[in-house]
Amino acid sequence: MSPDAVELNFSRSEYADRLLKTRMAMQAAELDCLIITDPANMAWLTGYDGWSFYVHQCVIITLAGEPIWYGRGIDVNGAKRTTYLSDDNIIEYPDYYVQSEDRHPMDYLAQILGSKGFGSFSIGVEMDNYYFTAAAFASLVRNLPNANFKDCNNLVHWQRSVKSEQELSYMRKAGKIVEVMHQRIRETIRPGLRKHELVAAIYDAGLRGVPEYGGDYPAIVPLLPSGIDASASHLTWNDKPLKSGEGTFFEIAGVYRRYHCPLSRTVFLGKPGQDILDSEKAVLEGLAAGLEKAKAGNLCEDIAIAFFAVLEKHGIIKDSRTGYSTGLAYPPDWGEHTMSLRKGDKTVLQKGMTFHFMPGLWSDDWGLEITETIAIGENGPELLSSVPRELVVIS
Amino acid sequence: MSPDAVELNFSRSEYADRLLKTRMAMQAAELDCLIITDPANMAWLTGYDGWSFYVHQCVIITLAGEPIWYGRGIDVNGAKRTTYLSDDNIIEYPDYYVQSEDRHPMDYLAQILGSKGFGSFSIGVEMDNYYFTAAAFASLVRNLPNANFKDCNNLVHWQRSVKSEQELSYMRKAGKIVEVMHQRIRETIRPGLRKHELVAAIYDAGLRGVPEYGGDYPAIVPLLPSGIDASASHLTWNDKPLKSGEGTFFEIAGVYRRYHCPLSRTVFLGKPGQDILDSEKAVLEGLAAGLEKAKAGNLCEDIAIAFFAVLEKHGIIKDSRTGYSTGLAYPPDWGEHTMSLRKGDKTVLQKGMTFHFMPGLWSDDWGLEITETIAIGENGPELLSSVPRELVVIS
Repeated sequence: MSPDAVELNFSRSEYADRLLKTRMAMQAAELDCLIITDPANMAWLTGYDGWSFYVHQCVIITLAGEPIWYGRGIDVNGAKRTTYLSDDNIIEYPDYYVQSEDRHPMDYLAQILGSKGFGSFSIGVEMDNYYFTAAAFASLVRNLPNANFKDCNNLVHWQRSVKSEQELSYMRKAGKIVEVMHQRIRETIRPGLRKHELVAAIYDAGLRGVPEYGGDYPAIVPLLPSGIDASASHLTWNDKPLKSGEGTFFEIAGVYRRYHCPLSRTVFLGKPGQDILDSEKAVLEGLAAGLEKAKAGNLCEDIAIAFFAVLEKHGIIKDSRTGYSTGLAYPPDWGEHTMSLRKGDKTVLQKGMTFHFMPGLWSDDWGLEITETIAIGENGPELLSSVPRELVVIS
Repeated sequence: MSPDAVELNFSRSEYADRLLKTRMAMQAAELDCLIITDPANMAWLTGYDGWSFYVHQCVIITLAGEPIWYGRGIDVNGAKRTTYLSDDNIIEYPDYYVQSEDRHPMDYLAQILGSKGFGSFSIGVEMDNYYFTAAAFASLVRNLPNANFKDCNNLVHWQRSVKSEQELSYMRKAGKIVEVMHQRIRETIRPGLRKHELVAAIYDAGLRGVPEYGGDYPAIVPLLPSGIDASASHLTWNDKPLKSGEGTFFEIAGVYRRYHCPLSRTVFLGKPGQDILDSEKAVLEGLAAGLEKAKAGNLCEDIAIAFFAVLEKHGIIKDSRTGYSTGLAYPPDWGEHTMSLRKGDKTVLQKGMTFHFMPGLWSDDWGLEITETIAIGENGPELLSSVPRELVVIS
C-alpha cells in the first residue's frame, strides 16, 4: 500500500505547522513526550480517522521525528489509509490485549516506550479524556515507574482553538448542511408525525448534504425532546407522534469531514404560550447582544455577560454556560473542552476561533434553544450558517 | 412533575432484580458502595437514558435503599423523565464544574459521599470505562483519602450477561430492524452511487424500522469501507462513488430502545476474485461450525475454536477474537466488554446470553464480514435476525 494513495484532508505543511505548535507547547510545559488519546487530537495531528476509539489507541509525540500511531492490529490498515505516517511509525498491539481482564494495551505500550528509552521522560497525558481511562493511567504508572507523568489534558485541544482557512472552509460546508437539515425539519414536521420518522428526515438531510458534497456523522446524535420532555436538555427520541400544543427543540449539527457546525432551533406546533414567546424575545435580544461582543480582543466571558445581562433585564436568571469552542470532533462531544462562553472565562478572543453560541432555556415544562455557530473576526463574528433566527411556529 | 408519568422500558420488579443481583456481586467483592459510570450500566440499573455522558455523571449503589443518580444540573430533568428514582435521589452538581480546568465534578461528588458517611467505605469503580477518566479517579482518591477503592470494572456488565425475556424481545425487534437495513442495501447499492447516499439509505431504514416501531441510534455508526479501504476494519464513509470490481462490507446494527442486534454482510459489485469466494466459503462453513457449539454448557472459546479450525482447514490463520457479548449499549461500543469468542475465554455459556458472532477477514486488499447475532439456548442458538447468509454479488 503506497502512502501516495492516501488522501489527506489537509496539506502536509498544515500538519507540520500543527506539530510545531504542539511541540512549542510541550517545551513550555517541559515535556519530552505526549501520549494523545483524544480521537480529534489524533486526527488533527496525523489525519487518523476511524471508529476504533472504542479500544485503546493513541498518538505519541516527542520533540523530534514523526508522530507514532499506536493501536490494535486490525486498525493498522486504517492508520495506513488515513495518515501521512510511514509504516515504521504505525505500531500495533496484539489482539489478546483487547478488552481483556488480565492485561491492558497500555502495559504493552509501556514496554515499547521503555525500549525506546522514554522510561524516564516527562510524559504528558490527557487525564480527563474519555479515551484515557483510570486503568490506562494506572498501567502506565505501574509499568514506567521512573517516568514523570504530567496532566496536559487540553494541551493539544488548545492548539486547535484558532482554525486555519481550510478548517473554516470545512466548517462553512458543515454550515450549509445544517441549513438543509433545518429546512427539512420545517418542511416535514406536523402533528401526528412520529418522532423517529422526523429523525430519519433529519439524518437524510444531514447525510445527503448538498449536491457538491455529503455529510459526515455528528459527534452527538440529534436531541429533539418535545413538550415536558424538552425540560430535559439531552433526551434523544422515541417513536411517538408529535402533538399539537408542544414545542420541540432541535439540537443538531451539520458535519463535513469531522468538522461540525452545530445549530439549534425550536419549533412549536400550535399556539405557543406567552411565557415561551417572552423567552424567545429575551433569547433573540440576548443573542444579538452577545454577537456584538464576539470580536477579536474581547474575552469569552464578554459574550456571556452581554447575553445574561439581557436575560436578567427580562427577569430570567441563568448560570449555566452559554456556549463553547467547537470544530473537529468525535463522539461523545462536539465541544472542544477549552473555552466556554461563561462568566470567569477570560480567554482573549482571536480571529478564527469558532464557537457554538448556545443559549438554551429549560423551564420545568418546556425548553427553548436558538443558537448560532460563529467564527470570531476582527470586527465581529462570521455566522457559519444562515437559518432564520426565530421560534418556528406551525399552526 | 409526577414520577407516575415516567414510562420505563422494564417493570419495576425487573429493576429490583437487577439491583439485587448487583448487590450480591458487591457483597461477594466486599464492597460497600459502587460508583457506576458506564451509561449502559446506569440505564440498566435505573432506566436513565440521555446523551449526557459527555459530562461526568454516575449512579451510586450501596447495599440498601434506592440508587442515587448524580449528574449535571441541566440533566436532572432528564433523570426525572427516564428513571424510577425519587427526586431525593437525583443529585446535581453546579454548572461551573462542567469542563473546567480548575475543578472536577468528582470533587463535588466526594464531598457528598463524605457527608453521607461513605468516606471510609470500600468503593468499587469502573477503572477501564470510557466515562471514568484518569482525572475522575484521581479526584476521588484525593478527596476521599480514607476510602478503599477497588477496581470492579465489569462487575455490573457481568450481571447483564444473561438477558431477560423483555430484553430478548427488544433484541428481536432490533433484529427485525437490521433485516430491513440489509434489504435496503441490496435494493439501493450500485456502481456510481455515492457512498454518503448509501449511508443515508441505511440510516433511513434503521430509523424508520418497521410499521409497528421505530429504530434508535446505534452505539457505532455504519462501517462500510470499499475495495482496498475494506482492508481496514473501522473506517466510516466519504462522498465518493462506489466502483465496480470492489467489495464493501457493512457492519451495522438495528437498535430498539438502546438494545442492539449487530449484523454484517458484504456486497461485491461485479465479479469477485477467487480469493474472496474462497474466503466466503471458509467463513460460512466456519460460522456453521461455530453455531453448532453455541449452546448452554459449552464455553465461549468452543465457538471460536470450532470456527478457527474450519478456517485453518482452508489455510487461513487468524487470531483476533471472533465475537463478543452484545445488547444494551451506548457509544462508542455495542460490545459488552465481558465475554469474547476467542481461545482462552472459558466462560460457560448460559441460556439467554447474547453474542455478536463476528467473523471478519481482512486481507491487505479487501475485507469480508458475514456475521450473526445469537441468543444461547439449551440445544443451540436462536438467530436474532434473518438475513441471507452469503456474499451478495451484484453484477
